[in-house]
Amino acid sequence: MTTKAVRLSPDRCFSPEPSQRKLARSLYDEVRALPLICPHGHVSPALLADPDARFGSPAELFITPDHYVLRLLYSQGVPLEQLGVQRLDGGPVETDYRTIWRRFAEHFHLFRGTPTGLWLKSELLEVFGVDAPLSADTADTIYDALTDKLAQPEFTPRALFKRFNIEVLCTTDAATSSLTAHRSLRDEGWTNVRPTFRPDALLDLTAERWQSDLDALGELTGLEITGYTGFIEALGARREAFKALGAAATDHGVQTPHTETLSESEASALFEKALTRRATEGDVSRFTAHMLMEFARMSCDDGLVMQLHVGSLRNHNERLLNRFGTDRGADIPVLTQWTRPLKALLNAYGDSPSYRLILFTLDESSYSRELAPLAGHYPALRLGPPWWFFDSVKGMERHLDAVVETTGIYNLAGFNDDTRAFASIPARHDVWRRVTCNWLAGETVTGIIDEEEAAEMAYELAYGLAKAAYKF
Amino acid sequence: MTTKAVRLSPDRCFSPEPSQRKLARSLYDEVRALPLICPHGHVSPALLADPDARFGSPAELFITPDHYVLRLLYSQGVPLEQLGVQRLDGGPVETDYRTIWRRFAEHFHLFRGTPTGLWLKSELLEVFGVDAPLSADTADTIYDALTDKLAQPEFTPRALFKRFNIEVLCTTDAATSSLTAHRSLRDEGWTNVRPTFRPDALLDLTAERWQSDLDALGELTGLEITGYTGFIEALGARREAFKALGAAATDHGVQTPHTETLSESEASALFEKALTRRATEGDVSRFTAHMLMEFARMSCDDGLVMQLHVGSLRNHNERLLNRFGTDRGADIPVLTQWTRPLKALLNAYGDSPSYRLILFTLDESSYSRELAPLAGHYPALRLGPPWWFFDSVKGMERHLDAVVETTGIYNLAGFNDDTRAFASIPARHDVWRRVTCNWLAGETVTGIIDEEEAAEMAYELAYGLAKAAYKF
Amino acid sequence: MTTKAVRLSPDRCFSPEPSQRKLARSLYDEVRALPLICPHGHVSPALLADPDARFGSPAELFITPDHYVLRLLYSQGVPLEQLGVQRLDGGPVETDYRTIWRRFAEHFHLFRGTPTGLWLKSELLEVFGVDAPLSADTADTIYDALTDKLAQPEFTPRALFKRFNIEVLCTTDAATSSLTAHRSLRDEGWTNVRPTFRPDALLDLTAERWQSDLDALGELTGLEITGYTGFIEALGARREAFKALGAAATDHGVQTPHTETLSESEASALFEKALTRRATEGDVSRFTAHMLMEFARMSCDDGLVMQLHVGSLRNHNERLLNRFGTDRGADIPVLTQWTRPLKALLNAYGDSPSYRLILFTLDESSYSRELAPLAGHYPALRLGPPWWFFDSVKGMERHLDAVVETTGIYNLAGFNDDTRAFASIPARHDVWRRVTCNWLAGETVTGIIDEEEAAEMAYELAYGLAKAAYKF
Repeated sequence: MTTKAVRLSPDRCFSPEPSQRKLARSLYDEVRALPLICPHGHVSPALLADPDARFGSPAELFITPDHYVLRLLYSQGVPLEQLGVQRLDGGPVETDYRTIWRRFAEHFHLFRGTPTGLWLKSELLEVFGVDAPLSADTADTIYDALTDKLAQPEFTPRALFKRFNIEVLCTTDAATSSLTAHRSLRDEGWTNVRPTFRPDALLDLTAERWQSDLDALGELTGLEITGYTGFIEALGARREAFKALGAAATDHGVQTPHTETLSESEASALFEKALTRRATEGDVSRFTAHMLMEFARMSCDDGLVMQLHVGSLRNHNERLLNRFGTDRGADIPVLTQWTRPLKALLNAYGDSPSYRLILFTLDESSYSRELAPLAGHYPALRLGPPWWFFDSVKGMERHLDAVVETTGIYNLAGFNDDTRAFASIPARHDVWRRVTCNWLAGETVTGIIDEEEAAEMAYELAYGLAKAAYKF
Repeated sequence: MTTKAVRLSPDRCFSPEPSQRKLARSLYDEVRALPLICPHGHVSPALLADPDARFGSPAELFITPDHYVLRLLYSQGVPLEQLGVQRLDGGPVETDYRTIWRRFAEHFHLFRGTPTGLWLKSELLEVFGVDAPLSADTADTIYDALTDKLAQPEFTPRALFKRFNIEVLCTTDAATSSLTAHRSLRDEGWTNVRPTFRPDALLDLTAERWQSDLDALGELTGLEITGYTGFIEALGARREAFKALGAAATDHGVQTPHTETLSESEASALFEKALTRRATEGDVSRFTAHMLMEFARMSCDDGLVMQLHVGSLRNHNERLLNRFGTDRGADIPVLTQWTRPLKALLNAYGDSPSYRLILFTLDESSYSRELAPLAGHYPALRLGPPWWFFDSVKGMERHLDAVVETTGIYNLAGFNDDTRAFASIPARHDVWRRVTCNWLAGETVTGIIDEEEAAEMAYELAYGLAKAAYKF
Repeated sequence: MTTKAVRLSPDRCFSPEPSQRKLARSLYDEVRALPLICPHGHVSPALLADPDARFGSPAELFITPDHYVLRLLYSQGVPLEQLGVQRLDGGPVETDYRTIWRRFAEHFHLFRGTPTGLWLKSELLEVFGVDAPLSADTADTIYDALTDKLAQPEFTPRALFKRFNIEVLCTTDAATSSLTAHRSLRDEGWTNVRPTFRPDALLDLTAERWQSDLDALGELTGLEITGYTGFIEALGARREAFKALGAAATDHGVQTPHTETLSESEASALFEKALTRRATEGDVSRFTAHMLMEFARMSCDDGLVMQLHVGSLRNHNERLLNRFGTDRGADIPVLTQWTRPLKALLNAYGDSPSYRLILFTLDESSYSRELAPLAGHYPALRLGPPWWFFDSVKGMERHLDAVVETTGIYNLAGFNDDTRAFASIPARHDVWRRVTCNWLAGETVTGIIDEEEAAEMAYELAYGLAKAAYKF
């Protein structure tokens, strides 16, 4: 069997129409090599803090930890056990990485037309120099080639960090994280890896692990948290600790952006119910709505940018959750509204020059209906890039189509890769840069903007807006 | 008056951009003549069971039974009486078919830019060889030409079935249908026309005709249905009878996909209320939610594929309903959510290898928000093609744009024509084949997939996926 | 510093693909100069009634009154005070128009890619002959050039009205407006400026000013309004007065299109509660739902076309409302449903030949889901053009894409500019004419319609449909 080498078109993601393509290419040529600004993502800081860290086998790098990959394989009947995903009960799963890789290779056609497919092709070719098309036939050859590369010093996390030209990389860290890796990076003089403060678990009043998280919060801050006031104080202390290690932002994931200020006594009463394990789901919702107001207030004080990721119903498949835990590809979006739910927060802080709120949605119908109109009014507000399922060629195009006419590009927050798949970072930024340049080329050839404007906007979308939005 | 002959562009539905068009054409050339897989539709089996069946006059073939046609004429002020639609009260309506045809011809411009317009042009030209453009001026000539054709043996339903190269055609049949036509077809040796089990009427506990439908169910199965248990048993028996005549699937139309398992005693109590005519609208909703779970359970047992058509508010215009009955063009979609409503069903059966669920929506905002993420996870799930109003060039493009990046094409169920207009079947499949080929050509010329992948995907979309989804 | 002259491409808004562009241009050439039909807008009739009226300074013409402009400047941190917007408390704001203009010019890049940006460029160039690109550097030169023009007799409102080739212009007037300007225009023989009856304020039962509005209604009609019956009678009298001055339509702005007929006694009781200042928000909602039914009934009687603008949550930013009043760019859309809410109204009047209802939405997800299916059935219904944020190149394209396949173009109401920015009227109509011609060219080059059909449809979209929809 001979296999044709994979070729990535230098004009991929560009319109086939020659005048638009030509302009897209020339805009792209000016921004393709700009440093990467990565203000939101899920790379483990330990990967960079430890000079000896390695990515492991190809299966461990590309498959097991990537819920984008797992979900499509699962949707076509491949059990997660066969992909080496650890079971919570320690039951048997496939442990042979080569076998796992082969299963993935056999199903690689499932990714045709998906961004994951595009990123993977691009990683294999441009990061690892593998130009054979992945399939059952080539699985072993490619596995060997990757294994070989991953053993080389040029393919350690630190080496790739440098090669990827990353100017800044923010991780996402629980409020109760000890930040050991981040401290160690700072100690070594790395200032371009920054933590992000994510306190979600501490709002989940009914979760089994809530009390232990709270205990950890107390321990880390040296504060005794016996009630709501202490809780708020401890959160403030942790925010300071994050800031001291370079944090620029906080991150909050909620099912709905409902915001509402409770009275001190109401908030205290809810917290008390949680402490005595009597909190209900309704209590969690009200407490979350209140805490979003509190976090906004804190952001006004300490300047941390507030990111709000809204609308994912986590762990839709309970059987899978119980067997394998979270983040296995079964988080499903729900309809999201913003105008009324965010009114309390935006009325309180939306005009404040010291506040910055960045919104992310999984409901595209809210782009033009609510998000762009809101961002086109409130000075504190910026719109995050298309998130998750919409971090894709068409997802980006729809996003730009839907929001720019209403809010312009200067109320956008640029791009972030939001990934734990470190090796996919350049591919993801590259798609964004290509799509935005092509979109601007489209605006230009249809006479909406001129070439000079397009070039300035391409730079902003590729680089400037993200830096500005996160105040780097 | 001279009239220019209608010309259908051989490149219709293809992008005007030359590189994309060229590739679209070459992909299409490979799939255009594949046999038609018609897994869901509303053709009357009697039309095929009776060798002497004829289509009647042009008005009876193209106008009176087609709610796609009636609605647009009605929307511009043409009373249904003038189109020969029978009144329930037997009141006078137009009976002269030529007059009806003329009214239609006078208003044919209303269909410009609609899929119905495209199908009709295509049927007239490609099925009946009529190349004059339909208008008031040509109405009579065309009527005569069609009348002439319809009298010929080459234009009987059976002759067209063969000419259309239909590999399999599924009809939609009430659970209480006697399936006489299907039995007769089987007896003749036809195995390519199959019934589909549609039990909706039996869930409509408050409907006037519910008891008589239930009686029919009892009679057909020879079971005495005195309660819920007998009801379930009888449904199972009917499913077996459908399967014996070739059924591959069931079909369920609901306003919302809410699913919920009731306890045996709750279900029995609801059924008892229905038997004593005390059921409320709320009872119908809860019973429906429960029965969807039951039908899924039965599908796991008997292997019938479960189709769920969600979100049409039927008979919005009550005056019209009372005068002419159902299916007159006044069914209007409503906002539809899936993530939470389907959770019970998908948690119970979504991972089961013996279950297959195919979803259809009239709310495009749920494509990318909920349907594609769900289908990209649950192995039992496939997404049906764009339905009803979205069975159109742009409707298909939006569908592919919205779902493929998230779920790939291999979680789609291919195409179905969903029509009672038999003569429109090839035109509908042709639009799908053209649009999918053009869409794949777009993916190719923008460097997302390569030509070989595109060719394989074109075949799957045109033919393979539908066969696989329905397990033909 | 040298600045390149602004050039507006003669092919702007047209596809770059040569075959489509060529056809778009030829379609556009036939409709570009057709008279403007302006059936809905917010131009002050006094501007035309007074022959001596002038537009004031460039800041007063382009900035201060235009909430499309204010909102984007505000979103990037420019306080409205610095833009010369009057404070309700009479507090200090910028009064130097040149300074205000400079601030606007410095921020003009914010409008890149927005319709406001396109309109402004087009106004400056095509109405005022200013071809320097607006920026901080050119602010003063352009300000002087505009000031010069605005002092000339060719740039008075009346002169521009003539130059713009406006065939009919409808204003929007409170039910309690004295219509002095309209009376004066009629007295002078102007019949092409018409009032529109907007009774919204009178439904706002809990508003502080409700009683004084009601008093004004009584005074104008000479009726003593002591209860609901008198209220209805007075509204009817005002409608007659509007008709006598040329009104073709009424206009109604509501958050939701919920409709419901209350009994006479319920309606009377609600009205009584309002008179005694005891009405609640819930009462306002029910009364509004009922009054929509009443207004429809009145429209059947007097033939006024009923316009319904749905889904804006007004004055989201309360701080801004309290400081500057309404219409400052903080009206934000909300999710909108139509199928169930409008059922009562459409069942009562949707089939009536004497009724005409035109719908406008800010929730694009309802275009294809509900609005097009409804308009494709009910003869009384027409769909208004893309509204507000969607009065834009891509907004129009999405609108046509979403609705035409389902409802055709003959159930559309053509275009309206909906603006208070008089000088922007030609630019807005021009965008619509360009986009519709380009869209029709796209339909033609993809073989959906032929060139003759496209030409007829271009005329209808540019001119015919608006006249027909409003019965001019």
